Amino acid sequence: MRLKPLGDRIIVKPVTEEEITKSGIIIPDTVEKEKKEEGEVMAIGDGEKIQKLNLKKGDKVIFGKYSGEEVTVDEVEYKVLKDEDVLAKIE
Amino acid sequence: MRLKPLGDRIIVKPVTEEEITKSGIIIPDTVEKEKKEEGEVMAIGDGEKIQKLNLKKGDKVIFGKYSGEEVTVDEVEYKVLKDEDVLAKIE
Amino acid sequence: MRLKPLGDRIIVKPVTEEEITKSGIIIPDTVEKEKKEEGEVMAIGDGEKIQKLNLKKGDKVIFGKYSGEEVTVDEVEYKVLKDEDVLAKIE
Amino acid sequence: MRLKPLGDRIIVKPVTEEEITKSGIIIPDTVEKEKKEEGEVMAIGDGEKIQKLNLKKGDKVIFGKYSGEEVTVDEVEYKVLKDEDVLAKIE
Amino acid sequence: MRLKPLGDRIIVKPVTEEEITKSGIIIPDTVEKEKKEEGEVMAIGDGEKIQKLNLKKGDKVIFGKYSGEEVTVDEVEYKVLKDEDVLAKIE
Amino acid sequence: MRLKPLGDRIIVKPVTEEEITKSGIIIPDTVEKEKKEEGEVMAIGDGEKIQKLNLKKGDKVIFGKYSGEEVTVDEVEYKVLKDEDVLAKIE
Amino acid sequence: MRLKPLGDRIIVKPVTEEEITKSGIIIPDTVEKEKKEEGEVMAIGDGEKIQKLNLKKGDKVIFGKYSGEEVTVDEVEYKVLKDEDVLAKIE
Repeated sequence: MRLKPLGDRIIVKPVTEEEITKSGIIIPDTVEKEKKEEGEVMAIGDGEKIQKLNLKKGDKVIFGKYSGEEVTVDEVEYKVLKDEDVLAKIE
Repeated sequence: MRLKPLGDRIIVKPVTEEEITKSGIIIPDTVEKEKKEEGEVMAIGDGEKIQKLNLKKGDKVIFGKYSGEEVTVDEVEYKVLKDEDVLAKIE
Repeated sequence: MRLKPLGDRIIVKPVTEEEITKSGIIIPDTVEKEKKEEGEVMAIGDGEKIQKLNLKKGDKVIFGKYSGEEVTVDEVEYKVLKDEDVLAKIE
Repeated sequence: MRLKPLGDRIIVKPVTEEEITKSGIIIPDTVEKEKKEEGEVMAIGDGEKIQKLNLKKGDKVIFGKYSGEEVTVDEVEYKVLKDEDVLAKIE
Repeated sequence: MRLKPLGDRIIVKPVTEEEITKSGIIIPDTVEKEKKEEGEVMAIGDGEKIQKLNLKKGDKVIFGKYSGEEVTVDEVEYKVLKDEDVLAKIE
Repeated sequence: MRLKPLGDRIIVKPVTEEEITKSGIIIPDTVEKEKKEEGEVMAIGDGEKIQKLNLKKGDKVIFGKYSGEEVTVDEVEYKVLKDEDVLAKIE
Repeated sequence: MRLKPLGDRIIVKPVTEEEITKSGIIIPDTVEKEKKEEGEVMAIGDGEKIQKLNLKKGDKVIFGKYSGEEVTVDEVEYKVLKDEDVLAKIE
């Protein structure tokens, strides 16, 4: 990973829908809600709030599809999220 | 449960309306209010604010129907709520 | 009471208008204000802010009619209020 | 007084306009401002912020006419104000 | 002065425009700004924030014309301002 | 300087456009941004936040053209700015 | 660099698109997001929050294209950003 998130930010690589279905976790689109999305943690900032979440590289997390900022590095798409954008860890 | 809520979040499994009626608790739809809903606590984040509520797995709680985020795991629907979304515990 | 309010919440049972008039306290509807309502305290959360108000079960309080959340338990209607929704105690 | 204000609230009894004129204090209605009103302090909550103002029962204070909440006890009208609604003490 | 400002409030007596011009300070009306006004400090509350400004009775200060609250005592008009309404002291 | 800024305020004397161009600093008007302006520091309040910026009388600073409040003293125009209105110091 | 950013501000020199493409980092324009931009850190304020990000002169960072304020010094365009405008460091 060539991007280092700053402060309370985290970088995730969104997982494709096929992979999500295979894992048994379905994150449906509902009319009144934003879409949820699954992603793999790639890098974690050293802000106090993001560190408190005790996430590590490789963790699978759920976040709002429209949360955070999209960035493309070496033709791969990533998301830069804040601590409050990450809803839950998948175990 | 395969989802671990992060920070001050909690995961509940909403209870069906038939179950609610049987328990003697009725949570009516009023025009000027959001709908209330009953649910069972499945997992609790380790944030300070959610821990202060002294809830544990299996507790029945009341929350606003449109509070929080819906996620489906292994075809079961759950809600990811924040500490302030939970109104009361049913005893 | 089968509902335990969480954090800085309190559960009150609104008093009917006849009872209020009898007690000598009249809470009029004014055009520019929300309606006020009288209620009896049923249960108190253990949040710091609600505990500071030194209320106890049975106390009569005044709150805004449209404050808080309505919940029906065993066919009786209650209100779940936050500490700042309670205006005064009737002595 | 049968109403005990909670937290940082105070209860005042508004003074009639004749009494105000007699005291030499005139609180005019201006177009761009809310009306000001004079009142007598009836009871003071024990919140930290209201206690800091060092007011006592009987003090005359000035507040915005549309500040606070009107309540009628034994056919007398009172106002429940917050600490920041009280502008000045008349000496 | 018969008015005691509460908390972080201060009472000033606005200076007439003739006096301002004479003192060499002109506070013009600009289209995109609120009018500024000069006034003399009459009384200072004992709030922490207003005390930090180190103002004393008799000081000349500049404030926004529409800041604060107008009150008339013994037929003289005063303004009740908050600490953040006072821009500068004239020396 | 006859004006003493209060708290976290600072007084600057805006520099004319000719002077700015001569100094090699050009602060262009862009459509999507507010205009920037250069000014000379005339006086600094003793608030904690403004003192932390380590500015002194005579420093040249850049600020948003529409930030702060205009005041005219002895026919010279000044600006009263808050600490957060000052973007950078020119060295 | 003749501009010293104040407090929690940082000055960056935006990198041209050709340079970005060469470095393998592509920051696409998406419809629902603000444009991202890459830049080189020129100077860092001494505010606590910006210092915590551990950036140094010469670092490459990613920020929102419409974040911050544009300033032109000696005919070169710079951006004055706040700590929260900087998303990630490129390594």
